[in-house]
Amino acid sequence: MNDIKQKLVVGLNLPARVGMELSQVCTPALLIDLDAFEANVATLRERLRTAGVRHRAHAKTHKSVDIARYQIEHGGACGICCQKVAEAEIMVAGGIADVMLSNQVTDAGKIDRLARLAHSARILVCVDDPGNVETLSAAAQQHGVELECLVEIDCGARRCGVEPGSAAVTIAQKISASDGLKFAGLQAYQGAAQHIRDYAERRRHLETAVAQARDTVSALQAAGLSCDIVAGAGTGSYYFEAASGVYNEMQCGSYIFMDADYQRVLDAAGKRISEFKNSLFIWTSIMSKTRDFEAVCDAGLKVQSVDSGLPMIFGRDDIEYTTISDEHGVIADPHNRLRLNQKLKLVPGHCDPTCNLHDWYVGIRGDKVECLWPVSARGMAF
Amino acid sequence: MNDIKQKLVVGLNLPARVGMELSQVCTPALLIDLDAFEANVATLRERLRTAGVRHRAHAKTHKSVDIARYQIEHGGACGICCQKVAEAEIMVAGGIADVMLSNQVTDAGKIDRLARLAHSARILVCVDDPGNVETLSAAAQQHGVELECLVEIDCGARRCGVEPGSAAVTIAQKISASDGLKFAGLQAYQGAAQHIRDYAERRRHLETAVAQARDTVSALQAAGLSCDIVAGAGTGSYYFEAASGVYNEMQCGSYIFMDADYQRVLDAAGKRISEFKNSLFIWTSIMSKTRDFEAVCDAGLKVQSVDSGLPMIFGRDDIEYTTISDEHGVIADPHNRLRLNQKLKLVPGHCDPTCNLHDWYVGIRGDKVECLWPVSARGMAF
Repeated sequence: MNDIKQKLVVGLNLPARVGMELSQVCTPALLIDLDAFEANVATLRERLRTAGVRHRAHAKTHKSVDIARYQIEHGGACGICCQKVAEAEIMVAGGIADVMLSNQVTDAGKIDRLARLAHSARILVCVDDPGNVETLSAAAQQHGVELECLVEIDCGARRCGVEPGSAAVTIAQKISASDGLKFAGLQAYQGAAQHIRDYAERRRHLETAVAQARDTVSALQAAGLSCDIVAGAGTGSYYFEAASGVYNEMQCGSYIFMDADYQRVLDAAGKRISEFKNSLFIWTSIMSKTRDFEAVCDAGLKVQSVDSGLPMIFGRDDIEYTTISDEHGVIADPHNRLRLNQKLKLVPGHCDPTCNLHDWYVGIRGDKVECLWPVSARGMAF
Repeated sequence: MNDIKQKLVVGLNLPARVGMELSQVCTPALLIDLDAFEANVATLRERLRTAGVRHRAHAKTHKSVDIARYQIEHGGACGICCQKVAEAEIMVAGGIADVMLSNQVTDAGKIDRLARLAHSARILVCVDDPGNVETLSAAAQQHGVELECLVEIDCGARRCGVEPGSAAVTIAQKISASDGLKFAGLQAYQGAAQHIRDYAERRRHLETAVAQARDTVSALQAAGLSCDIVAGAGTGSYYFEAASGVYNEMQCGSYIFMDADYQRVLDAAGKRISEFKNSLFIWTSIMSKTRDFEAVCDAGLKVQSVDSGLPMIFGRDDIEYTTISDEHGVIADPHNRLRLNQKLKLVPGHCDPTCNLHDWYVGIRGDKVECLWPVSARGMAF
């Protein structure tokens, strides 16, 4: 852990120091409100404990060894998910002992790296191609390790995964018959449904996914293959999967931070879902104020992803972030209240790709900096 | 230079090694086609030499000390522009001797860092606030350095900058009268016009900007203040400013790489502008192929910015990148030609924020890796 931090500390500017007042933190910086973050972890832990399902926290959201450890030690997580081998390498080096690649690993070089990792941690990986079963098996045998494989089905997201049912059984049988591999279960993540605003529409998509997962689990059982793990779910849908009686392992990630887009996802009563709090902010300064009804802040495209829309300004409904460019944001200020060097908290549009732009999380408790956590696996995309 | 590289090398995975075949480069990775890159640098050098104006290359595009040096040593650039103090710190540490902050620096801590930098390099900075003249002057005097200041006018982009004319004169007079500061000229960048598709409309915006710059230069002259530098221009407009007789320093950045959005900017004949070549690519692999007419690649939101649209697939009009998520891209494959582990080159939608996601440029000559350049100032947003 200290080694990893050291790598990032060397030579890099720091946006803050522990003990500093928030007002002194350099902008733009990525803040975590630790009270809100801890409350979010506790909330999901209780929800999933009550539902009787496991949580395998998704580290793609935060890419931080510190946060992964917190989720395991305080959030009851059984392990983590990663999307990339390089992400998993950082997490295993940081001491995480149970890592699922919730993604395909098909490149020969990456398969070799994945098999090496299995010397240091339990490694699970998703598969949707028969040829990939062979390459994974060969690497596991070569390195004398076991790789646990889940068959991924496409349950509506139209991304990776085979068709539910017999196609999944064919691959599972091949896994089961391959040396060095263990058939571990089913990956059935409906990623496209997480951000659907309307509750009933979201539920319809999840009912389809749950039915497909259930049918596939039955087809596997009929073929003599039992699923230790039936995995999927995210922050926008986990209550459906957790109550399904089919899924037993949830892969929520964004719940720790939330973002502007998740604030538009509604509950059954048509209200904003409020069980998780905004804990992630971009701390920004007004750097130009030459017009009465507009101001310019120092947080643009290089510190936040706008794929899901512009940021919201936390705690302020009198001003609005209206235009973004590489290093600037224009803020409408109809009452002419903003002043040069004034600081604001932005709620980013989409948390995961925003975190991946930063080197550090500045953890604050109230108005004081309590910790700096490196975004340990930032940029680890391969 | 070696020191800076060292900081980034330690502990980070590398996507490639020098001498490797392109086919062996790990995906996703950010590639530079060195032949195209060098041709772009030579093309702009000749255009600006012919026009008789200087080039101050914008390092916000690439954030690379190696590329900044190349632009100065081979591209005839008189120096570079940066947008952030932390970016300038990296560039000065890397040996760049002439750096303009083409942006406001108003925070006390950042002003102090900027003044310190002036011990090691010529430092210029833009100003649009009278109070900021005072804080810059105090820091320059405290550190015993000179900061060269340009007044920034808003010539149509509605971002930073004062109104053209008398407001600019007032600030210039204040700079001129302040110890530790030197009045260096005018910053008049029309950033909002760079990507306007239609030539005539783009020209209209630039004609307005040029007229405003001309009037402001005249008003300054009438007040006894001469502009050594009249700066602005980008890849989408520089031919207007260079021919204006008013501007004398161009700040083009994207010309070295180009991107999918710049391919939509048209010339006077309504044709795609082709003087600069695409030299920047995301190298990606097909990682899932379970459906006949679609495939999934491994380059999503964490390796490219989609603020200006989805990527194009280089050299292929039979397939199309249609949907992006955090770590995946769905590619329409109507002829069912793509195969698992096949590699493709993507042209990113917007070059600057895409480069800022990567730690390394993989420089290729033909199909061989010739160099790895660190994105030295990646993430240096403050």
